[in-house]
Amino acid sequence: MSEIRHALPIRRDDDFAQWYQEVITAADLAEESGVRGCMVIKPWGYGIWERMQQLLDRRIKDTGHDNCYFPLLIPLSNFEREAEHVDGFAKEMAVVTHHRLIASDKGGLVPDPEARLEEPLVIRPTSETIFGDAMSRWIQSWRDLPLKLNQWANVMRWEMRTRMFLRTSEFLWQEGHTAHADTESAREHTLRMLEVYRAFAEEQLALPVIAGEKPENERFPGALETWSIEAMMQDGKALQAGTSHYLGTSFAEAANIRFQNKEGQQELAHTTSWGVSTRLIGGVIMTHGDDDGLRVPPAIAPVQVVILPMLRGNDGDAALIEYCEELRDAICKQDALREPVRVRLDLKPGKPAPKRWGWVRKGVPVIIEVGGRDLEQGKVTLLRRDQLWGEDAKPAFHGPSRLDCVAEISGLLEDIQDALYDEALARRENAIARDINTFEELTAFFRSEARYPGWVEVQWARPTGEELDAVVEKLKGLKLTFRNVPVNAVPAEGACIFTGRPAVERIYVARAY
Amino acid sequence: MSEIRHALPIRRDDDFAQWYQEVITAADLAEESGVRGCMVIKPWGYGIWERMQQLLDRRIKDTGHDNCYFPLLIPLSNFEREAEHVDGFAKEMAVVTHHRLIASDKGGLVPDPEARLEEPLVIRPTSETIFGDAMSRWIQSWRDLPLKLNQWANVMRWEMRTRMFLRTSEFLWQEGHTAHADTESAREHTLRMLEVYRAFAEEQLALPVIAGEKPENERFPGALETWSIEAMMQDGKALQAGTSHYLGTSFAEAANIRFQNKEGQQELAHTTSWGVSTRLIGGVIMTHGDDDGLRVPPAIAPVQVVILPMLRGNDGDAALIEYCEELRDAICKQDALREPVRVRLDLKPGKPAPKRWGWVRKGVPVIIEVGGRDLEQGKVTLLRRDQLWGEDAKPAFHGPSRLDCVAEISGLLEDIQDALYDEALARRENAIARDINTFEELTAFFRSEARYPGWVEVQWARPTGEELDAVVEKLKGLKLTFRNVPVNAVPAEGACIFTGRPAVERIYVARAY
Ligand SMILES: [Zn+2]
Ligand SMILES: [Zn+2]
Repeated sequence: MSEIRHALPIRRDDDFAQWYQEVITAADLAEESGVRGCMVIKPWGYGIWERMQQLLDRRIKDTGHDNCYFPLLIPLSNFEREAEHVDGFAKEMAVVTHHRLIASDKGGLVPDPEARLEEPLVIRPTSETIFGDAMSRWIQSWRDLPLKLNQWANVMRWEMRTRMFLRTSEFLWQEGHTAHADTESAREHTLRMLEVYRAFAEEQLALPVIAGEKPENERFPGALETWSIEAMMQDGKALQAGTSHYLGTSFAEAANIRFQNKEGQQELAHTTSWGVSTRLIGGVIMTHGDDDGLRVPPAIAPVQVVILPMLRGNDGDAALIEYCEELRDAICKQDALREPVRVRLDLKPGKPAPKRWGWVRKGVPVIIEVGGRDLEQGKVTLLRRDQLWGEDAKPAFHGPSRLDCVAEISGLLEDIQDALYDEALARRENAIARDINTFEELTAFFRSEARYPGWVEVQWARPTGEELDAVVEKLKGLKLTFRNVPVNAVPAEGACIFTGRPAVERIYVARAY
Repeated sequence: MSEIRHALPIRRDDDFAQWYQEVITAADLAEESGVRGCMVIKPWGYGIWERMQQLLDRRIKDTGHDNCYFPLLIPLSNFEREAEHVDGFAKEMAVVTHHRLIASDKGGLVPDPEARLEEPLVIRPTSETIFGDAMSRWIQSWRDLPLKLNQWANVMRWEMRTRMFLRTSEFLWQEGHTAHADTESAREHTLRMLEVYRAFAEEQLALPVIAGEKPENERFPGALETWSIEAMMQDGKALQAGTSHYLGTSFAEAANIRFQNKEGQQELAHTTSWGVSTRLIGGVIMTHGDDDGLRVPPAIAPVQVVILPMLRGNDGDAALIEYCEELRDAICKQDALREPVRVRLDLKPGKPAPKRWGWVRKGVPVIIEVGGRDLEQGKVTLLRRDQLWGEDAKPAFHGPSRLDCVAEISGLLEDIQDALYDEALARRENAIARDINTFEELTAFFRSEARYPGWVEVQWARPTGEELDAVVEKLKGLKLTFRNVPVNAVPAEGACIFTGRPAVERIYVARAY
């Protein structure tokens, strides 16, 4: 049997990290910018982000949030107010100290010493403190609550070791900030937004995720509770794909967010915050990519169907193009996943085969090629990106009639969306061990021969403080971290594998990005 | 005859600048953030920006551009390459010099002296240089041209005197950057994007604009040609609402953007750039606002129709709400201006009259109130924001049947869109003098008693260099500036009012923001 000749020079099994970089290059998603730790998000990568934004923005608005925009620069003093928050964030941030450049003696430009800022400004690593300032102005009475805000913005955390999409100094994200009258309403909202993220990840990104609470040591600086969705990458590592925080009243206290309650007394508000970022693109790559490049789930594909006429530079081309234009116009009119199908007729110069493989690497869900013979027979030649290879190790072309192709395109795209999700879910479930009952078994599991061991779900007694720290250190020795305590777990029934005490819940342990 | 009791405490005629600030507050558009020169864009203001983005983004994509995202921070050395560009921009920019904070002796936080950057980074004031770097990597041959990119981003120019939306240190914008094989293609594209801006401003923002070329002294730093759209505000001043630049090959030379032409030789690309910003919101306020607050053109109104049930806190409320929900659902299904009508049923607590005036100040195009009597008679009570007052100095309520209201809503919104445009156009044309033939007449015109003298269109000989500088200085003495040389002017036929030589074209002179 012949070997498949894959479209990438590196396979996942060869070197997963290098393969990841290769997909980013081959699918034309992003590249290094020359500015330390910052990337250029190229049109195909940014197009995927725009799709994510559209779909998630709708969900955020449907849950009653308004978008707004807050300043990029935050006064240093804001960070000095909430003690735990400072400890967590104060370290690596970009600091603006001057507001003017002047010519230097050597002919270049330097910051003007005369234009030093009295108070340095920090490029936002996150915006709790500056939203808090506004909330303290905007909230007077219980009638103003809940206040539900969101912004789409760039943020910056100075990172020493960066990796495109996964950890970059500047990244794009959405950050929601809400204020509530009491714990119950704020916690309920924290979980509601966690559920919004779960549904968005699973239904639109085709990323199966585990929603749950992070243990104490993994909380957002200053939060009382941090919840996350965790996705398994194809190398078995976990990726935290979104977080939702219940912040209690400590941020409200720092920013003085008070309201008059129904009894006429002043109370502190309870706040939440939650965010997802361009990191999700990294998650999509490492979940759906294969040895031929990226596979983009149809719901977030900037182009869902590409039509490639097999032009020959002769008289026949005009008829071929006309046939393809009619096909495009017919497909345009179809809806899939509750939106009009996004189709592109690719007439760029270039030979058909390289163009096909370019689209394969980009991961467009459906490629339709049309040659002279298709035209004669009223057919098309169709390739599903998620089922690229036939048993003969050749591309698995299908040959429906043009009419069938149009009629079936909607079902086909929905089928691909489901297939990508099902594939990822099956892989994850296959890689989660739920029968680990001792720390020795856990150690053995992660030291096993299996290159990508996956995750384990264990029972624990939810230790806190120093006891937890000791466990975290022990896991660190194995390069492991706690992921989260799943929302929908089977109740605990055994002993804590770390302390031996009766377990109170289950928690995931994994290597992670 | 009784006096109208307007919804704002300050009228345009009292103090236009104060009135402007008052509209921003009363319509809940934005506020000072506490960070120098930076504003918080509140939900209603940001909602208008989101609508602008959607509509303009479609036009930018329809003209073949891809969106992408480039780093916020630009190395200082990038600004040292293009000499004229540096001169124009190098002065007031936010400079990042450190990447870490540490605790100070006094307990606060300070930039860590150990974490000083080797090369300072500048927060982008505009991104020509960093797009240029990428273009030099992405462009190899004539086949890669034209390359048409756009990004939506925040930018920062340190401003000493700021004014919300019009001049803020940080602002939001869209910046397009393209590279072409020759002058012709690049100039054609510069003008094409100018036309995109004109159509967007006139058709969607209902802002009549003059499209034309800026004189030499008003060019973007480093550009060969700068074109603009100019709108007249209600105080007769001009607002530059968008610009499109033909950059020639100087940016290509600085960034080394070269391509192999069809003959196999290396050539420099010709580049363009063009942008509009949140400044447009200031333009919408000063064009469409009135003494009752903002009036938002329906095409960019986040909510086009608001339904206010006159709740009484009694048994009748349930039926009233049901009636209003049915009305909302029926209006939702209508299309206006080629999109589904955006309707909101406002059930927030509060008395009907203050709620109505809140929406009047925000400028929602149509307010529908529903009381018990409307319910009984199958009617609604409707208020057009653009025709708020009747001859009796009372709000001009209309009382169509519910069915007529639904059937006519689409036409009504389109009518309001047109009416706002027509009103602004008539005001502008009335305030442009085209019969000024000498500099003395020009001086007299702007020294006249008329509080808001408007613009003059004069004929000139297009002086350059020092001769132009002298004219510019002379105008400056009258607080006047050249706006642009209109694209569609009547040919010149007389003498230049500045030099006395034969005129070659017409140019607008005005006070400006
Ligand atoms: Zn088949
Ligand atoms: Zn009437």
